[in-house]
Amino acid sequence: MEDMSNMTSLKAKVLTAALPYIQKYNGKTIVVKYGGNAMIHPLLKKAVMSDIILLTLVGINVVLVHGGGPEISGMLKRLEIPSRFVDGLRYTDKETAEVVQMVLSGKTNKDLVSLIGQLGGKAIGMCGIDGGMIQAKKLEGDYGFVGDITGIQTAPINHALHHGYIPVIATVGTDAEGNVYNINADTAAAEIAAALQAENIITLTDIPGLLQNVDDPDTLIPLVTMADIPKLMEAGIISGGMIPKVKSLERAVKSGVKKAVMIDGRIEHSILIEIFSDEGIGTMFVAE
Amino acid sequence: MEDMSNMTSLKAKVLTAALPYIQKYNGKTIVVKYGGNAMIHPLLKKAVMSDIILLTLVGINVVLVHGGGPEISGMLKRLEIPSRFVDGLRYTDKETAEVVQMVLSGKTNKDLVSLIGQLGGKAIGMCGIDGGMIQAKKLEGDYGFVGDITGIQTAPINHALHHGYIPVIATVGTDAEGNVYNINADTAAAEIAAALQAENIITLTDIPGLLQNVDDPDTLIPLVTMADIPKLMEAGIISGGMIPKVKSLERAVKSGVKKAVMIDGRIEHSILIEIFSDEGIGTMFVAE
Amino acid sequence: MEDMSNMTSLKAKVLTAALPYIQKYNGKTIVVKYGGNAMIHPLLKKAVMSDIILLTLVGINVVLVHGGGPEISGMLKRLEIPSRFVDGLRYTDKETAEVVQMVLSGKTNKDLVSLIGQLGGKAIGMCGIDGGMIQAKKLEGDYGFVGDITGIQTAPINHALHHGYIPVIATVGTDAEGNVYNINADTAAAEIAAALQAENIITLTDIPGLLQNVDDPDTLIPLVTMADIPKLMEAGIISGGMIPKVKSLERAVKSGVKKAVMIDGRIEHSILIEIFSDEGIGTMFVAE
Amino acid sequence: MEDMSNMTSLKAKVLTAALPYIQKYNGKTIVVKYGGNAMIHPLLKKAVMSDIILLTLVGINVVLVHGGGPEISGMLKRLEIPSRFVDGLRYTDKETAEVVQMVLSGKTNKDLVSLIGQLGGKAIGMCGIDGGMIQAKKLEGDYGFVGDITGIQTAPINHALHHGYIPVIATVGTDAEGNVYNINADTAAAEIAAALQAENIITLTDIPGLLQNVDDPDTLIPLVTMADIPKLMEAGIISGGMIPKVKSLERAVKSGVKKAVMIDGRIEHSILIEIFSDEGIGTMFVAE
Amino acid sequence: MEDMSNMTSLKAKVLTAALPYIQKYNGKTIVVKYGGNAMIHPLLKKAVMSDIILLTLVGINVVLVHGGGPEISGMLKRLEIPSRFVDGLRYTDKETAEVVQMVLSGKTNKDLVSLIGQLGGKAIGMCGIDGGMIQAKKLEGDYGFVGDITGIQTAPINHALHHGYIPVIATVGTDAEGNVYNINADTAAAEIAAALQAENIITLTDIPGLLQNVDDPDTLIPLVTMADIPKLMEAGIISGGMIPKVKSLERAVKSGVKKAVMIDGRIEHSILIEIFSDEGIGTMFVAE
Amino acid sequence: MEDMSNMTSLKAKVLTAALPYIQKYNGKTIVVKYGGNAMIHPLLKKAVMSDIILLTLVGINVVLVHGGGPEISGMLKRLEIPSRFVDGLRYTDKETAEVVQMVLSGKTNKDLVSLIGQLGGKAIGMCGIDGGMIQAKKLEGDYGFVGDITGIQTAPINHALHHGYIPVIATVGTDAEGNVYNINADTAAAEIAAALQAENIITLTDIPGLLQNVDDPDTLIPLVTMADIPKLMEAGIISGGMIPKVKSLERAVKSGVKKAVMIDGRIEHSILIEIFSDEGIGTMFVAE
Repeated sequence: MEDMSNMTSLKAKVLTAALPYIQKYNGKTIVVKYGGNAMIHPLLKKAVMSDIILLTLVGINVVLVHGGGPEISGMLKRLEIPSRFVDGLRYTDKETAEVVQMVLSGKTNKDLVSLIGQLGGKAIGMCGIDGGMIQAKKLEGDYGFVGDITGIQTAPINHALHHGYIPVIATVGTDAEGNVYNINADTAAAEIAAALQAENIITLTDIPGLLQNVDDPDTLIPLVTMADIPKLMEAGIISGGMIPKVKSLERAVKSGVKKAVMIDGRIEHSILIEIFSDEGIGTMFVAE
Repeated sequence: MEDMSNMTSLKAKVLTAALPYIQKYNGKTIVVKYGGNAMIHPLLKKAVMSDIILLTLVGINVVLVHGGGPEISGMLKRLEIPSRFVDGLRYTDKETAEVVQMVLSGKTNKDLVSLIGQLGGKAIGMCGIDGGMIQAKKLEGDYGFVGDITGIQTAPINHALHHGYIPVIATVGTDAEGNVYNINADTAAAEIAAALQAENIITLTDIPGLLQNVDDPDTLIPLVTMADIPKLMEAGIISGGMIPKVKSLERAVKSGVKKAVMIDGRIEHSILIEIFSDEGIGTMFVAE
Repeated sequence: MEDMSNMTSLKAKVLTAALPYIQKYNGKTIVVKYGGNAMIHPLLKKAVMSDIILLTLVGINVVLVHGGGPEISGMLKRLEIPSRFVDGLRYTDKETAEVVQMVLSGKTNKDLVSLIGQLGGKAIGMCGIDGGMIQAKKLEGDYGFVGDITGIQTAPINHALHHGYIPVIATVGTDAEGNVYNINADTAAAEIAAALQAENIITLTDIPGLLQNVDDPDTLIPLVTMADIPKLMEAGIISGGMIPKVKSLERAVKSGVKKAVMIDGRIEHSILIEIFSDEGIGTMFVAE
Repeated sequence: MEDMSNMTSLKAKVLTAALPYIQKYNGKTIVVKYGGNAMIHPLLKKAVMSDIILLTLVGINVVLVHGGGPEISGMLKRLEIPSRFVDGLRYTDKETAEVVQMVLSGKTNKDLVSLIGQLGGKAIGMCGIDGGMIQAKKLEGDYGFVGDITGIQTAPINHALHHGYIPVIATVGTDAEGNVYNINADTAAAEIAAALQAENIITLTDIPGLLQNVDDPDTLIPLVTMADIPKLMEAGIISGGMIPKVKSLERAVKSGVKKAVMIDGRIEHSILIEIFSDEGIGTMFVAE
Repeated sequence: MEDMSNMTSLKAKVLTAALPYIQKYNGKTIVVKYGGNAMIHPLLKKAVMSDIILLTLVGINVVLVHGGGPEISGMLKRLEIPSRFVDGLRYTDKETAEVVQMVLSGKTNKDLVSLIGQLGGKAIGMCGIDGGMIQAKKLEGDYGFVGDITGIQTAPINHALHHGYIPVIATVGTDAEGNVYNINADTAAAEIAAALQAENIITLTDIPGLLQNVDDPDTLIPLVTMADIPKLMEAGIISGGMIPKVKSLERAVKSGVKKAVMIDGRIEHSILIEIFSDEGIGTMFVAE
Repeated sequence: MEDMSNMTSLKAKVLTAALPYIQKYNGKTIVVKYGGNAMIHPLLKKAVMSDIILLTLVGINVVLVHGGGPEISGMLKRLEIPSRFVDGLRYTDKETAEVVQMVLSGKTNKDLVSLIGQLGGKAIGMCGIDGGMIQAKKLEGDYGFVGDITGIQTAPINHALHHGYIPVIATVGTDAEGNVYNINADTAAAEIAAALQAENIITLTDIPGLLQNVDDPDTLIPLVTMADIPKLMEAGIISGGMIPKVKSLERAVKSGVKKAVMIDGRIEHSILIEIFSDEGIGTMFVAE
């Protein structure tokens, strides 16, 4: 009994220590971008969903935006639809766009909604087509139906939050003619955070954050201001696949989101560690 | 100018003639079940969606429930997943259930939502997993994940209606463990109509209605009461694939839905003809 | 049955054709001014009220403003109160003002409310005295209690609309001392449309619209901009009794009402033809 | 200054003495029936309206129901429409019914609304046709369009109260065919009080109340229970024109109205005396 | 009976005379500052509370702010805590501040709330600590915990008013560290009136108002504009304990409160006399 | 850094472990009774208030009911008011009742409100006099103004909860005559929990719970059903000061409160341990 008592007492101490962070975020909106490799491991996925439910229970409005890279690639392969890449972007013809829509909003999205439901939470899955939420046009260049966001309809998201549901959003866009666009999930999450005037945007990745030396996890850069970004680009520290991610977070911060963080989704409960500690983890982007 | 004048004058007369029907249904809820072959032809699909938007604009709450037979079969075939039928039902193993979920809620559902959006309406696509809307268990017998509905959560549907969206529902069910069930769309539509205490349920099929002689469209039975059903079954007039459809409509009527009709979805604007005329079309099922 | 089928099918086509117009006006406010000879024929009156009910059922907020010329004259004659005209306006002494109030708000107004009720609509009759709705002072010149509007209290109108009633308004005005004023119905309708920031004002008259040659209905001028009005006045095309009508519509458009139309109330369902077709009928006044 | 001081001090004492009565009626509904000779004298009419405004300002919901006997008779005479009486009731043919509607809802009603407005109050005038408020059928017997109330639609009355207006009601009734009925104002007030579940109904008459000896004002009967009424009828104390008045109050009390009083409308501020003193004035009818 | 009749008739006349004043203040907020010697006599206290209840019943939002001088002094004496005065202010050490809080919010405040309850009113007692209502810091100079108001949280006051309670406020202030401050009740009432944008502030004192000659009650100055105040200070007419009182009222008027009056709380029903007469009593401070 | 990382990771694990308990109590009401010796130690008091704020932030409606024994005794002693005990109850004469009211609602209550404010929470302090919340009469027997609760007005408590404040309640009662009653805090908390239909009532004491052998903390009885209580009384295990405490909890459970627990307020965060673990601590009373 002594041990139990020690454990529960420790538990109480931890909960009490979380109090100031809970007070700080109470009633605020946080957009969580989840995707890529961080989404593959089932146990990790479950832990992330638990964390999100916990955040909603302490009064935070969480909006979950997800991509679905590996599942889409897998399905395209099974359907023998060849993938072609232009400037690092998947060229998206009509048929590919249809598969993206189907997998993202029918498989990945509903699986996340289902998982939240199993863990006792309440979620509504939506894609950018629902309620005309993500308006897009063709991205300049020759990428087919890769979309450039032209507007966000926040009404469906706010309705879901208002009624106590976690909105889970698949990043498929649309236009007035009903074309379907493949939208980069980092970009969509940032635009949604900006439109909602969210407090934070948290991007779960499969690296520790922005690294001085991409091969050395000990060279994590914990804080980046808007003024630092051009310098870091010039120095080649922000490069490759990191460029669109950083650009998205920059966009969010410049539109009024207070804090944009890139954290390692492979660390269990990394969201909670980020929210409920002063140090946080990963790389934080702020205005100044 | 004379011709135009005649046309617009006729138009005015028709609109005026619709007045009593509009008054009758104003503020009421109608569940439309759409699926199968009636959903294949693009022009027809567009006409059906126009009709539904029109109904919402004259103050009717329309809930659209759809299946997606042909698209599911096509995808299973492309993915080389063999289909096996037991007692006329598709045996649904885990892999098949996943494809059903993906196609129904990611392809068919979002395509309908998109079409409504292009026509100037506002819709939110959902499946039975969202908000835990369709609770199910395994149907008795050995059919795999073919679902038997155990409960309907009407909250997500009512929220959508309240905010002015047409709820478009893919009939995938779920349970507390997160299993996904393939649910017959006729059954789901009937259960939803019952749970919402809808005024009408309209099932769009690819036949004229219930026929005395299945090969002769002139033998349409326009009206069936609850008392007639056992007799028509015994006489073999309700048989085969018609049995589950009639059973569903019977279930709806016995739960308080005032009128359940089976109409020919291949006739352009058949929904409007049904709602805005005394005769209606197809077969109507009423309590007595 | 074939014929019926053709008719109902045509009906469906017409309803579908009305869809874009319904979408355009949904949730908007339209002020209809009804009076004079257009109001005399019972069948026509019934048709106009049906049209108004139909508009409310497709989500348009209709405010009906009426005069009552012939009924007032008839009652004055029966009561042997002599009528004197000054500058084309009926000189209104106290006794005449009392009769105007009584006939307009007790007879004409309630008859219209009753007719709407019989046709299945819901209306509340009001005059400018109710809730102090139409504030007025004596019109400059020597016309007795002919009123010049000094302010519109929109609250009673908005309450009626909010609770789902058609406000039917008799154009009697009042002031702080309780004097009763005879108000020109065209002017009152325009002021009400301006105060409500209505989308349209439709004036039902007993002529086809503004005519180039008043004796030739084929010389209808379909469109008049604000800039055209002084020219048309100078040319004498707007003259006589047409002047106050046009001035009222001008006032409404300059105050933000998008479209002001003068249509022939003797044509059955002219309101519907105006609203549900691109061409419209009669003469339309717009900003530019 | 001493005198003024005494006066204002007295004023303060009186206001304070009114406190318990104000507390008692705060938030309650009182129906005031006003009509006949009590309504003729202009100063008295003004005093009654002031009293009603005062009641609304101390938080009482007042509904004013009025008749208009003398004005109707005057107009019928001027229009040379002969009046015929059957069993003490005016035989009401179509033409008479039209005059009743016109005078009652266009003249008497709006004059009261205007007077309330001049005194700083806010009123909305309505008759039984508005919003289908007073549903009626022909009274049994051969009286023409004398109406028997079949139902009260309280919605328009409650909307007016909700928005802070005094509903002023002319007792004209209607039916589904749009026939207009002449309704006894005492009966209508009682039915409205019953439908609203009012706290009190106060009938203003031109006699001191129910008198033991109709010629001797000192024989006032201050209190009558439901059980007393048959006895007083039998004894001939309730007789003649008093019968329908008492029957109406009886109807109200039996439907749940707590107190029904008949007071002398010729005494200045008799309503205030009734409400703000324990003794009250006139005759009070209670359940037991 | 004649006498009674005369009395009730007089009563009715007085109530009617109050009508315009009631109309004027309906829905407005009045802050009443009550304290010092005016609060000692039990009968007077009861009369003041009756007046306040009456005001709330005629639709005025009354906020009661009180001090508690004599009771505090008495308790300090009983507890043998020595009182020291600096510049006419009680030096407030921690122990004194605790007694002030305890007596003011536990004794004086709840006694007033109780009295209102006994008289049929509804009140909620609060002090500046509740909901962080009165934020303060140390007054410059060496007075210990005498507070200088830095902000007013109006939410708890507005909630009480919204739910129909009279907020009764003890003028104890607080800061982020939880220090308790002794706040001058005149100052607090003025700040609260300013924060609420009240219509009036009424200060009940134990003198007739501002006197030209402090020893001669006949030299009352009935009206003071903001421009008069510096002159009256220079002339020594506003002096001693009158200075902070006048400063507070000046502050309120300069912040938008329409009228600030200082009246003699020893005169029975002086609040009612002030509100319900044109002359008012005491000294009125207005902008100009 | 490794350590920190371990700590934050542990923290995340603990928060996740709390998830099911948070889900269970979300939106429920818990009454916490706090008083006596458990309230003396400042650090402990702060910890209890932190725990309560934490509970409100995870969506639990907490109502804090407190006594104030030692502070009352201290003040009575300082004021040289002799204390007399009858049947273990303090005989409460008028003077004593006044001190109880003053200390409890002016000192203890506001100190708790202040402490919650300092810790970032929002509270409103009230006593049973406010809004007539705790109605009482004299307890049978000769105890002076010791109160027996006759009714709870939940409106002021619900308003505070609705607006996001923690209601902090001093257990002083009142009656229609304005008498003040000293009410046992355990009893008051139980009556309030019953009136609010609270989920739980938690009593913080200075013992581990109900002990088989009062001198041996290892003999804690963890669970007591309603049926057990009479047996435990008979056996003398519930005796002395424990009797009223247990009676109160029994009363709460029998009125529909799901769980009543008695826990050791001296253990830091005992409330959190009770809520966020399956075992709980102390003694739990349930229906069966």
